Amino acid sequence: MKRVFNFGAGPAMLPLPVLEKARDEFLDWKGLGMSIIEVSHRSAEFEALLTETDNLLRELAGLPDNFDILYVHGSAQMQFAAIPLNLMPLKPAHKAAFIESGHWTVLARKEAARYGKAVTVASSEASNFNHIPDYDVSTLDADTSYVHITSNNTLFGTRWNEFPDTGDIPLVADMTSELMSRVIDYNKFGLVFAGLQKNLGPSGMAAVLIRKDLIGHAMPQTPNLLNYDTYAKNHSMPNTINTFAVYMMNLVLHWLKDQGGVPASTDFYRGAAQKAHRSQMNITFTLANSDLDKKFLDEAQALGLYALKGHRVVGGMRASIYNAMPVEGCQTLADFMKDFERRNG
Amino acid sequence: MKRVFNFGAGPAMLPLPVLEKARDEFLDWKGLGMSIIEVSHRSAEFEALLTETDNLLRELAGLPDNFDILYVHGSAQMQFAAIPLNLMPLKPAHKAAFIESGHWTVLARKEAARYGKAVTVASSEASNFNHIPDYDVSTLDADTSYVHITSNNTLFGTRWNEFPDTGDIPLVADMTSELMSRVIDYNKFGLVFAGLQKNLGPSGMAAVLIRKDLIGHAMPQTPNLLNYDTYAKNHSMPNTINTFAVYMMNLVLHWLKDQGGVPASTDFYRGAAQKAHRSQMNITFTLANSDLDKKFLDEAQALGLYALKGHRVVGGMRASIYNAMPVEGCQTLADFMKDFERRNG
Repeated sequence: MKRVFNFGAGPAMLPLPVLEKARDEFLDWKGLGMSIIEVSHRSAEFEALLTETDNLLRELAGLPDNFDILYVHGSAQMQFAAIPLNLMPLKPAHKAAFIESGHWTVLARKEAARYGKAVTVASSEASNFNHIPDYDVSTLDADTSYVHITSNNTLFGTRWNEFPDTGDIPLVADMTSELMSRVIDYNKFGLVFAGLQKNLGPSGMAAVLIRKDLIGHAMPQTPNLLNYDTYAKNHSMPNTINTFAVYMMNLVLHWLKDQGGVPASTDFYRGAAQKAHRSQMNITFTLANSDLDKKFLDEAQALGLYALKGHRVVGGMRASIYNAMPVEGCQTLADFMKDFERRNG
Repeated sequence: MKRVFNFGAGPAMLPLPVLEKARDEFLDWKGLGMSIIEVSHRSAEFEALLTETDNLLRELAGLPDNFDILYVHGSAQMQFAAIPLNLMPLKPAHKAAFIESGHWTVLARKEAARYGKAVTVASSEASNFNHIPDYDVSTLDADTSYVHITSNNTLFGTRWNEFPDTGDIPLVADMTSELMSRVIDYNKFGLVFAGLQKNLGPSGMAAVLIRKDLIGHAMPQTPNLLNYDTYAKNHSMPNTINTFAVYMMNLVLHWLKDQGGVPASTDFYRGAAQKAHRSQMNITFTLANSDLDKKFLDEAQALGLYALKGHRVVGGMRASIYNAMPVEGCQTLADFMKDFERRNG
């Protein structure tokens, strides 16, 4: 059997063990004598699958208890209408702010304009979206119902590395292309949504992670199946759910858990220098949690990795790799860093 | 491997050869080295699959050229909002009529009421929906934008056997539980829709068969992905389509074609007597196409099946099965009838 490396932007590659398991039980799921796609969404077995999927997603995402998980019909793009229909009424002005970092934010803003005021507060369009626009969120109007961003931009190859603190104004993030790929502090968000077809499963369904207090405010004109309250009150099954998508997502989450969970590598360590200007000779980095600095340095030294403490002006760590450093030294450091992250991430 | 007879109302049983094919190529579709659920919806291979699915559905349904096929996000229930959003503006009164034969028609009417006047013109609710309500469609107000019916009622076990002629007022039918199960004259309809999860595939997507002139009238508040025009202009791919659902539907349609197409049995022959009062001794039936009567009788006689011509008062055919008729006679007649239908249906 041929398998290729599929670098497509989505629908995208899924883990081979997940596909193999789905194939092996495709005609007889859980010994029921039926395919998963033939099983009733109201059966005890499917309900249990959905609940387990909830629990896995919650655990692996580190989702706070004040969030609900909704599995909604349609792709992420259906949420471009659902979000304003549900959230614009949070404030009488029916106004949403968009920090535009690419094509998908622009589309979302245009769709939101059907239901209220959709304001572009910042945009990097003038430079063809080659960066995330700077914006001081403290200048947001207080009557803004929510702020919409796209956390990773598939077309332009940019992402938000640090998320803004929008205070009392809910931050809404389209994470279609990166949900469950890095550690997220969900407390910064009011709503995070994603189509499944990049990191989590097949196309056709989206997951909405929403702070519970933001549910129940939809406009009267909201289609029943775009209303978050409908999903929240019926464990995402007001009607027939996309059973296959839930099933595949469940398998992917199990696989992710087996791999050690959401990879924290990009956030656990941070490069101190801007990428474009990084030295290959003096590598400066910090730990996201600086409380771990001493532990890191102590354990490194015990392995024979010396002088990693950064200069006091920058803080954190610094590895100087001059000509005499053998490649084994670099490899030992890299292995230790991965191991340290796994134990402390 | 265990396989059961699954009588569930949906998601429902799928043909075993279809499931086997899907399993066998689940890791490598068309030799691409990817699962069908990993393949881009924009790939040439997927586009070809979608076009082939269109053509198969059109051929097997006998769909007229003035109809478009749209594959839309969400289940059939999402259409309870999409239909009024798209069709109510056909007339200035923004009024739709509902002939209520069960739960799903009632839900559709309640959802439509968000977007205009949703009028119950007939209902069998008083008798717990144990029959299709009588209604004289010639009494419909001329300013009615469309008439909504549910062709088969999964909860109550009733169906429309004959569809009303609503003239210039488009007839909209929810055929979720019976699309592609009987021959339909689509010229009687403006729009027919169905979730796939009964006769056609997995849950999560719906097919909308719509007369082309009914596209392009949506209210401004219509979410982009509930607007039929969006789907019609983009071959149902304004965004990522549910690729797996299209694929499974394609396999099911191929299987259906291999079986000889849409079974016409319930319409090819019609019982002349009301079901509740049918004789087991004198079985009266007519051919939907009475031009075939003579051919039927001639071929029957050539097989040794005699005296099947009906009494002139009723017309059609009559098989009298008195005590002396051996079971082989009945079996031969039954086999001939199936064969005749296959050749002439």
